[in-house]
Amino acid sequence: MRGSPFEARRQVISAVLDGQKLDALLVPFGANLRYLSGFTGSNAMLLVLPDEALLFTDPRYQIQAAQETSCGVRIATRPLPREVAAAINRRRLRHIGYDPAHTTCDTFESLESQLSVRTTLHPAAGRVEQLRRIKSPEEIAAIARAVDTNSQAFAQAVGKVRAGMRELDLAAELEYRMRRLGAEKPAFETIVAAGARSALPHASPTAAKLEPGNLVVVDMGAQQGGYASDMTRMLFLGSPGAKVKRLYRAVLEAQLAALDAVRAGVTTSDVDRAARRVLRGYSLDRAFTHSTGHGLGLEIHELPRVGKRDHTPLEPGMAITIEPGAYIEGFGGVRIEDTIVVTEHGCDILTPTGKELRVID
Amino acid sequence: MRGSPFEARRQVISAVLDGQKLDALLVPFGANLRYLSGFTGSNAMLLVLPDEALLFTDPRYQIQAAQETSCGVRIATRPLPREVAAAINRRRLRHIGYDPAHTTCDTFESLESQLSVRTTLHPAAGRVEQLRRIKSPEEIAAIARAVDTNSQAFAQAVGKVRAGMRELDLAAELEYRMRRLGAEKPAFETIVAAGARSALPHASPTAAKLEPGNLVVVDMGAQQGGYASDMTRMLFLGSPGAKVKRLYRAVLEAQLAALDAVRAGVTTSDVDRAARRVLRGYSLDRAFTHSTGHGLGLEIHELPRVGKRDHTPLEPGMAITIEPGAYIEGFGGVRIEDTIVVTEHGCDILTPTGKELRVID
Repeated sequence: MRGSPFEARRQVISAVLDGQKLDALLVPFGANLRYLSGFTGSNAMLLVLPDEALLFTDPRYQIQAAQETSCGVRIATRPLPREVAAAINRRRLRHIGYDPAHTTCDTFESLESQLSVRTTLHPAAGRVEQLRRIKSPEEIAAIARAVDTNSQAFAQAVGKVRAGMRELDLAAELEYRMRRLGAEKPAFETIVAAGARSALPHASPTAAKLEPGNLVVVDMGAQQGGYASDMTRMLFLGSPGAKVKRLYRAVLEAQLAALDAVRAGVTTSDVDRAARRVLRGYSLDRAFTHSTGHGLGLEIHELPRVGKRDHTPLEPGMAITIEPGAYIEGFGGVRIEDTIVVTEHGCDILTPTGKELRVID
Repeated sequence: MRGSPFEARRQVISAVLDGQKLDALLVPFGANLRYLSGFTGSNAMLLVLPDEALLFTDPRYQIQAAQETSCGVRIATRPLPREVAAAINRRRLRHIGYDPAHTTCDTFESLESQLSVRTTLHPAAGRVEQLRRIKSPEEIAAIARAVDTNSQAFAQAVGKVRAGMRELDLAAELEYRMRRLGAEKPAFETIVAAGARSALPHASPTAAKLEPGNLVVVDMGAQQGGYASDMTRMLFLGSPGAKVKRLYRAVLEAQLAALDAVRAGVTTSDVDRAARRVLRGYSLDRAFTHSTGHGLGLEIHELPRVGKRDHTPLEPGMAITIEPGAYIEGFGGVRIEDTIVVTEHGCDILTPTGKELRVID
């Protein structure tokens, strides 16, 4: 990756600066900074100028920063905001964009008190997040690797599922397999919820045992090379009855309809509506209590949102999840989720795992 | 835990408000909020008044918040800062403390623009962090559980170590065992570093294989019930030579000397000095490139710091790590770390794992 991220994004960044008449954009520590610089350490600030970018970090990261980024590296011996302010003053920059959503009051005060009186800080939120919506081929490859790890780990762990296994044992098994396959960590807290608990969309795994007659929701993701995957699949212990089969069929049809609706130019609310329409046909629209999906990349939740009130036109290169569900309190719930990439005429479904209800005898 | 945290801390909180002549303290989402309220959800703000506390969260957490906290729960349908500002205005509160280190510029602006013109926000940083330094018996029990999980997982995984195993396989094994023993997740990125890489104090596990003649550092922690543990132990594959044995003995003596120095009233720099003095006797003081330890609890790094320049007097109930190390570039490093609790006349070493160099044949 050395050299690639900032070089590749220089033009878009210049456009952002020009559009707001800014001399520089200050990017706080977080996913935006990693996106622009490639730096993976735990402490940094990035100052983006029209023709270069300066990464400020502490002495622990001297070697690592030089390896990971093509930005100019400044090793700070004082707190980072002081060093950044000094660099801005030396260059006599006047109009600096900052990110009010990710800058603390302390950092803002520290910057403002040390900047020249002629320099002004301007809120410039969300610009990098907008860029991050469209993934480069390298980013799509990274997401695809995380997806593969995720799916392989699922295949390995499902073979071990037996009645009597605790929810947390299955979560531990999935995370162990992902780790051995190269994931840094789970992309979010792995969800394993059995029986009536499968109706809770975000249940944490407990010591409850998987029992015959249980629907089991498995919602998992890998973080690998910094990028996230996200997949949900359903298991059933024993022989599913008619109500489970109908619920499963409804959600599967909704998921396929949403996938079918995806292509460049369609809005995210159109995709959401496609899933909801199918569930309405089963009188399950009120059981679908969340959005149809979300963007993902360096973070597990990124733009665009894919919900009722989100009217973002889809563009090629957007990586999103499609994950309708239906939840019946006291009975159980079903959710089916893939990670996909939008293309001109449809989408690439990255998730290779089959979508049948996994019946465990 | 229902009801306990805030009730137990009401008096101290009142003292904080009185000391700064504040009508209320606004606590942003994070460890401080969990500490005061007991709430474990992912979105909340807490408004602490002299005689009650109000937890603002969103509708997803309606049931969970009522179960977890004895604070008044306010389910917000608008963004949390708006709801908090409205509550402050209704009660005609004038002087509100906020935490500039954990409040974003966006949140601050949103609050300020909606508060009555007679209301002022005052920076009030670090107060809750100071309270959190001294652990209650319930908190010490929680840390001890995390420590036990950590040590049991280590014992189980060490039995599986063989030459040819990859660093990341051992990390995966340790994390899997912790999870099955009840941990929510690793308290930090598990460190497994073999051979010359053991000289990097914060190496990430790689696909490099453990080989005969390798020193291997294992630095691991569990997060369980929200509380962290932290332990470092060393393995050696094969038969350690004189240089390894001497390095190990030096660090072990330094660790024992630091433990021996701990008791109420002694400063953290005294403890640090005790470790450094031993290493100086081995001409290894310059090889000890970090601090001797740190507080831990709801976060893996809390107050007090235990380093050269930290002169905090130790108090009974402080939970800290003692972890001197010595690192020789190109050869390898040794670190030995326990989690302990300060007592009137010494300390309780929570970590039960033996401190010998583990030789793997």
